Amino acid sequence: MRFNVSSQVSYTVDGPSTLILNVHALRSGAQMINEESFVVEPKVKCEEFVLDQGQNRFVRIETGTTKVLKVTYRATVDIQVRLIPMDKLMAMTVGKLGRNVIPFIYPSRYCQSDKLGRLAYSKFGSMKHPFQKVTAITNWIYDNVQYLSGSTNWQTSAYDTVTERAGVCRDFAHLGIALCRALNIPARYFAGYAHQLNPPDFHACFEAYIGGCWVGFRSDQAGAFEWPGAHCQWT
Amino acid sequence: MRFNVSSQVSYTVDGPSTLILNVHALRSGAQMINEESFVVEPKVKCEEFVLDQGQNRFVRIETGTTKVLKVTYRATVDIQVRLIPMDKLMAMTVGKLGRNVIPFIYPSRYCQSDKLGRLAYSKFGSMKHPFQKVTAITNWIYDNVQYLSGSTNWQTSAYDTVTERAGVCRDFAHLGIALCRALNIPARYFAGYAHQLNPPDFHACFEAYIGGCWVGFRSDQAGAFEWPGAHCQWT
Amino acid sequence: MRFNVSSQVSYTVDGPSTLILNVHALRSGAQMINEESFVVEPKVKCEEFVLDQGQNRFVRIETGTTKVLKVTYRATVDIQVRLIPMDKLMAMTVGKLGRNVIPFIYPSRYCQSDKLGRLAYSKFGSMKHPFQKVTAITNWIYDNVQYLSGSTNWQTSAYDTVTERAGVCRDFAHLGIALCRALNIPARYFAGYAHQLNPPDFHACFEAYIGGCWVGFRSDQAGAFEWPGAHCQWT
Amino acid sequence: MRFNVSSQVSYTVDGPSTLILNVHALRSGAQMINEESFVVEPKVKCEEFVLDQGQNRFVRIETGTTKVLKVTYRATVDIQVRLIPMDKLMAMTVGKLGRNVIPFIYPSRYCQSDKLGRLAYSKFGSMKHPFQKVTAITNWIYDNVQYLSGSTNWQTSAYDTVTERAGVCRDFAHLGIALCRALNIPARYFAGYAHQLNPPDFHACFEAYIGGCWVGFRSDQAGAFEWPGAHCQWT
Repeated sequence: MRFNVSSQVSYTVDGPSTLILNVHALRSGAQMINEESFVVEPKVKCEEFVLDQGQNRFVRIETGTTKVLKVTYRATVDIQVRLIPMDKLMAMTVGKLGRNVIPFIYPSRYCQSDKLGRLAYSKFGSMKHPFQKVTAITNWIYDNVQYLSGSTNWQTSAYDTVTERAGVCRDFAHLGIALCRALNIPARYFAGYAHQLNPPDFHACFEAYIGGCWVGFRSDQAGAFEWPGAHCQWT
Repeated sequence: MRFNVSSQVSYTVDGPSTLILNVHALRSGAQMINEESFVVEPKVKCEEFVLDQGQNRFVRIETGTTKVLKVTYRATVDIQVRLIPMDKLMAMTVGKLGRNVIPFIYPSRYCQSDKLGRLAYSKFGSMKHPFQKVTAITNWIYDNVQYLSGSTNWQTSAYDTVTERAGVCRDFAHLGIALCRALNIPARYFAGYAHQLNPPDFHACFEAYIGGCWVGFRSDQAGAFEWPGAHCQWT
Repeated sequence: MRFNVSSQVSYTVDGPSTLILNVHALRSGAQMINEESFVVEPKVKCEEFVLDQGQNRFVRIETGTTKVLKVTYRATVDIQVRLIPMDKLMAMTVGKLGRNVIPFIYPSRYCQSDKLGRLAYSKFGSMKHPFQKVTAITNWIYDNVQYLSGSTNWQTSAYDTVTERAGVCRDFAHLGIALCRALNIPARYFAGYAHQLNPPDFHACFEAYIGGCWVGFRSDQAGAFEWPGAHCQWT
Repeated sequence: MRFNVSSQVSYTVDGPSTLILNVHALRSGAQMINEESFVVEPKVKCEEFVLDQGQNRFVRIETGTTKVLKVTYRATVDIQVRLIPMDKLMAMTVGKLGRNVIPFIYPSRYCQSDKLGRLAYSKFGSMKHPFQKVTAITNWIYDNVQYLSGSTNWQTSAYDTVTERAGVCRDFAHLGIALCRALNIPARYFAGYAHQLNPPDFHACFEAYIGGCWVGFRSDQAGAFEWPGAHCQWT
């Protein structure tokens, strides 16, 4: 499937600053960039980079003395949703995880999985299949957390959301990740260009590592995989 | 029923201090003190008091330059468990609460009921009867929180316990109170002399105000009311 | 000094509810109500009350099926600022506190004094005089916490503010109270009608109990006692 | 300088598990492993690995059905403390940071730098030189946080320590890192073999990235750089 995505952001700049943006579409086995353009007006120093670990594409922008900065990104992206037979999505013990996947079982700033162990095991621990576990997690979040615009802020973390039971997609994703990690299932955050959303916006989701594969999930909707961006790529 | 209760505490005192203890058995409609003794060795300045609001009996002790202080309390207490017909335990709107009961619907240091509103309503809000609600709360705590000695400390509050799912009687009681208050049911903490516990110890429980009556609950055991101290007194 | 105070609040009511308001001016030794009026339109059931402990005047309003409720309070208040000689504002050990003052040395929902002990002692513990301590606390808050409208919400507590260093008067007061209590100085919150503020608003301050006297402080301005509401009343 | 380091850990194993240990000495420009041995008894499956990003050396151990596992590591390490002239330790704007250093300005599980911005800027923001800033941070921690064994646990984070003012080396390091990151100075945690400590133990410290160089700091002692492990390596 082919998608056109675009974003446009304007900044009022008080003084020389560095911006690090992550608006570029990912390049992966499942997602190819057919064409793209990234324009900053006025023209200032920009540098695109990828970290050694991970595939996220960043751009670092030096504003200089510019007062107003306009950033425009456009891309045509080909996504190949790969259907993976359930029997391939096997549990993978920590002993078998690829070394670069291991960091994604640890807690992070917004995903305090270390505090959610008992809850995660009591609710999802008895399920056999990891895909079933993650699906149950996203369904539980959908059933128990209210989507409530403005109810959270940039400090809100999974530890808050699991109790306060309200949030936006970012909070849903953090909670999903934290619950996965609490079960030793590697998980990581991603933000996508939301399909046919009006007005357009980014949308936070997460990926869980199952059967040697990063599988996309969202937790603000019942079920998994109904949306076009569900992808799976072999690492 | 008649109970003999006693406690003995020893303190090593580094310097002149004030101790405020709450070891005396309560005097209430349902509980009468047949006889009691309170002895501090060596003899130092002691003052018993009750706050205007509430019936808890405190004693304030000035240690002076004493190095070791031994406090012994003994009482024979007559408890009249009053069986209240279910139909008396009616819901009471905030509009009908006696003015001195109102403070017990507000959040407190260890019972952040303001943060548990959504969770409490989604789990217990649809139940009709307040007694049914509180019983469901105590059962939920019993089913979901593990009694684990040493897992918490003096800073642990209901907000922690609802997520971390482990604690001791004190934490169970705080969580029960917080969930009640989140539903506009007044609730308050009490510690009792545990019946036939060996070694003897205090035990934290809570009371909820239902139908004009403070009803005793515990949340570390399935069901309510199985223990002798379950009392109800008209305020 | 005589002040005219007034407040007007309008509510849109979704369904029958109980409101508990605390807009009435306090009656105390230092503050007398010359005349006052409290009007609710349309006329619904109202009940004024004071708790056994404390002097705050509450009013409980049953909205019934009213859709829009308008509450108007007006009062003419005579305040007698009493100048207390410094040598009267002596330290008072916990052993000497009146029994009804004792609750105000304990932590509460927004004032986790139990967590601030080390900080409070290291900064203010070496000062001799309690008035000097509380003044130093308010100055420290004024110097270190930024008044920043919108930076906090109804969940923000002293534990947050002491680290995040931003807030509004409510947060300043909570932090002041928590630091006082951490030093065993009883302290309590109050909201006043702000003098000559435009647009008019309530203003959160706090009182510390020094020398047998509740002394008013504010922490969003350097120094203490510059404002007309500074009062002191013997309990 | 040459050091002999060793550690020995014993595990009682309840069932087949995976252990990930980080006991191996780092290999870096400033630190060379002269010789080392790593023995697990009984012999089970072990795999050493390094993440793409970072140089920490991990070992993953599959316990199998072993009941007691004994891990022994010994190494002779040559450390070349490099003295860096102060004028080399220049500030480096975010715009100039190497791409793989960028992750170390972000908050993490135990280092919520996003919450400490105001505090960090008000205390250390006006200093010119980054080395001076980090030294001031470690001195401030040393002066304000009490080293108190047993006062914290595995959940304690910088956000707690900055307020509660007590902890162990791990907590001191977390707080140092959080304050650095709040000032846009990249910082990261490391644990070393403590020199001449008896009984021997690991010791938590941190590195700050200054002038293109990871510089070692400790915050449980006044001043920086007095200990042999202070190293600096070009990335």
